[in-house]
Amino acid sequence: MKAEIINIGDEVITGHIVNTNAVWLAKRLLTIGIETPFITAVGDTVAHMEAVINGALRRVDLVILTGGLGPTDDDLTKRALVKVFRRNLVFHDEILEDIKVRYAARGIEMPEINQNQALLPQGATFLPNKFGSAVGILFEEDNKLCIALPGVPAEMKQIVDDELLPLLQKQIGSSVTYSRLVRTSGISESSLAEKIAPEIPMPDGVKLAYLAHIYGVDLRLTVNAEQTRLAGDLIEQPEGWLKRKLGNLVYGEDDQTLQSSVGALLVESNSTVALAESCTAGLIAGALADVPGSSRYLDRGFVTYSDQAKVDLLGVSKKTIKEHGAVSPETAEEMALGALKNAKTTYAISVTGIAGPDGGGDENGDGKPVGLTYIAIAHNTDNEIQVRSKKFLFGKDRALNRQRSVAAALNLLRLVLLGEEPFK
Amino acid sequence: MKAEIINIGDEVITGHIVNTNAVWLAKRLLTIGIETPFITAVGDTVAHMEAVINGALRRVDLVILTGGLGPTDDDLTKRALVKVFRRNLVFHDEILEDIKVRYAARGIEMPEINQNQALLPQGATFLPNKFGSAVGILFEEDNKLCIALPGVPAEMKQIVDDELLPLLQKQIGSSVTYSRLVRTSGISESSLAEKIAPEIPMPDGVKLAYLAHIYGVDLRLTVNAEQTRLAGDLIEQPEGWLKRKLGNLVYGEDDQTLQSSVGALLVESNSTVALAESCTAGLIAGALADVPGSSRYLDRGFVTYSDQAKVDLLGVSKKTIKEHGAVSPETAEEMALGALKNAKTTYAISVTGIAGPDGGGDENGDGKPVGLTYIAIAHNTDNEIQVRSKKFLFGKDRALNRQRSVAAALNLLRLVLLGEEPFK
Repeated sequence: MKAEIINIGDEVITGHIVNTNAVWLAKRLLTIGIETPFITAVGDTVAHMEAVINGALRRVDLVILTGGLGPTDDDLTKRALVKVFRRNLVFHDEILEDIKVRYAARGIEMPEINQNQALLPQGATFLPNKFGSAVGILFEEDNKLCIALPGVPAEMKQIVDDELLPLLQKQIGSSVTYSRLVRTSGISESSLAEKIAPEIPMPDGVKLAYLAHIYGVDLRLTVNAEQTRLAGDLIEQPEGWLKRKLGNLVYGEDDQTLQSSVGALLVESNSTVALAESCTAGLIAGALADVPGSSRYLDRGFVTYSDQAKVDLLGVSKKTIKEHGAVSPETAEEMALGALKNAKTTYAISVTGIAGPDGGGDENGDGKPVGLTYIAIAHNTDNEIQVRSKKFLFGKDRALNRQRSVAAALNLLRLVLLGEEPFK
Repeated sequence: MKAEIINIGDEVITGHIVNTNAVWLAKRLLTIGIETPFITAVGDTVAHMEAVINGALRRVDLVILTGGLGPTDDDLTKRALVKVFRRNLVFHDEILEDIKVRYAARGIEMPEINQNQALLPQGATFLPNKFGSAVGILFEEDNKLCIALPGVPAEMKQIVDDELLPLLQKQIGSSVTYSRLVRTSGISESSLAEKIAPEIPMPDGVKLAYLAHIYGVDLRLTVNAEQTRLAGDLIEQPEGWLKRKLGNLVYGEDDQTLQSSVGALLVESNSTVALAESCTAGLIAGALADVPGSSRYLDRGFVTYSDQAKVDLLGVSKKTIKEHGAVSPETAEEMALGALKNAKTTYAISVTGIAGPDGGGDENGDGKPVGLTYIAIAHNTDNEIQVRSKKFLFGKDRALNRQRSVAAALNLLRLVLLGEEPFK
């Protein structure tokens, strides 16, 4: 069975939101062996919606629409569906009853507009929505399945996991698509390809892809097979090869993130970490705390955006800032030492940089362009304190520079925890 | 002229990356009056790519592909293009020369694999890439334009802004699509619709859409007109009406973010702010620092993830934590007061909550479920110090709870800065 996902809404085609529904859904479908070769987004125009629904029904067996099921006038998915499938809308008392109960539980009167939510195309069955008023809608015609889901991510996800996937799993055979991510940080896509491509042993049917993102490059191995076990066997050889070849460039696999792998290493070594952040202003601490259970190693952090804050909270000397600047290895190292001392942790990471768009002094000839960033790590081993720093030259984009600083800081700490010398 | 954007790559259909290229590009095209009614994503299979390119060429005049132009074997866009347009690949010395110069400037030898980057389909012209080795490719056939761009966002964006948009602008007429966002926070989509829908004056041709996101709900007004001025006139009436009707629920318009509008209010009132974050662990400070120039009002912040950090850095009393718990209005207020005192700022915001998935004590009958969050704001006016707090009950999802806390904290500060009483 192959699927097409259609995301509906002017907002997904005019750039006002980033559509994360499709990728989440495609990933979920893949877990039960359904591939999604096509993802389409279309605006809130009934004629355009009809065109893409009809197009999808021609090329796949399973069409899943998301969005456009809200109660307001710009929600047109049902109108497109009744046109494509030539049906009327029918009122369902049980749906309205359920919405009323939900509002009552929150002590709010139900807005009248929610009446619209109880209308479904004739012959459709519905998939209950635990979190909202828009139920999922399911049609079957000419051996094709067409499903409409709300666009609110939490609602869509609940319906998919609780209702849709179990239902689809019954309909499909045993062939599965199995995929495995080997995740790297600290190396570019083309350098990775040069290391890997000429030598990697690839059993028939296994595909390799390079997926670059802000925290590094993922290597994805994919295979189709009759059973999960068989697929796993086929992937095992190239996967093992990649891990041996790439060593510590690999930080994890599949759902492991850079921050979760750093977290696991900290727990393993019974270590703790503190933060001293200038340009990232809390984003590294925030990323470490993404991981459930991070309180085992994350105790505190300092956002020292101003020079004075660096002096007050971290004990950076005014002289250092005056002589070397706030963006310098000297300041970065004093920041890390200050955080380590205050927090009494095993490690402290500091970041100071010129995120941009202003603040770069390159025009003044002091050699400090936008993008210049120093990251230091202080380490307390048996009361012997060490500090090392590293210079990075990122780009001109403020948001990107801050994200790159987070990634670089987490990766540096990971390498230190693995006993490497990443400061050379 | 209407466009279709086609994003190429297994990663965009299998859920390994969120595709932000399409929305960015659609937004950019709209600025020069080009609508994008269709966005399609397709995997790295040449036959599927041919199918969607041919489909797009049938329904629009402008087809823009992104992705699949890298040097590695899984980059197949050019192969699909030569099939669709029945052309050969031709080697361009000038492209390779340029890539070599770029590598030399960084002191790195060019990986041989980049030779591939100099091959273009016959008859195509190329759009230079300042940041990478994959140039943009442009075809014209039967009055249809087909453009292929690299998938790396920074590279794609540079080519679009520097090369593609100026080129397209020459080709199109004077009709423009004009849109305006009115951005709200602190009210749900259906409550907004109930306030607005029955009364809003809508001139012919103006469309209204509700776009919900984590920081609130955006109201988008769109109109097609011959000139920007005319379009602006048509939107003015409903826009003004929305702003009057919604008052302080509106935090900004168009590209203004919640954090940039808070920043503007802080600058306007010559105020400063400090942070004391537990569950958000730096994300509020990090969000405030998204805004260029935020150093005018953001001086420092405290990530106090552990109880001990709250005591050490913010002077929260052990007794308060013991008697009321770390997640309580009392602790939140002491956190805010501690940050205010240390940072000597006009305002301090604190957040303490149970982000989940664990840590909720509801099963123990202490009435503190996952999602329970307290936000406090301390304020120093003429050396008179006030502190107020508010309780929030978010959901079960850790990442969502932390993002909602950031949004709620920024919105509370915004309302306080506007002289409201948001703690009732």
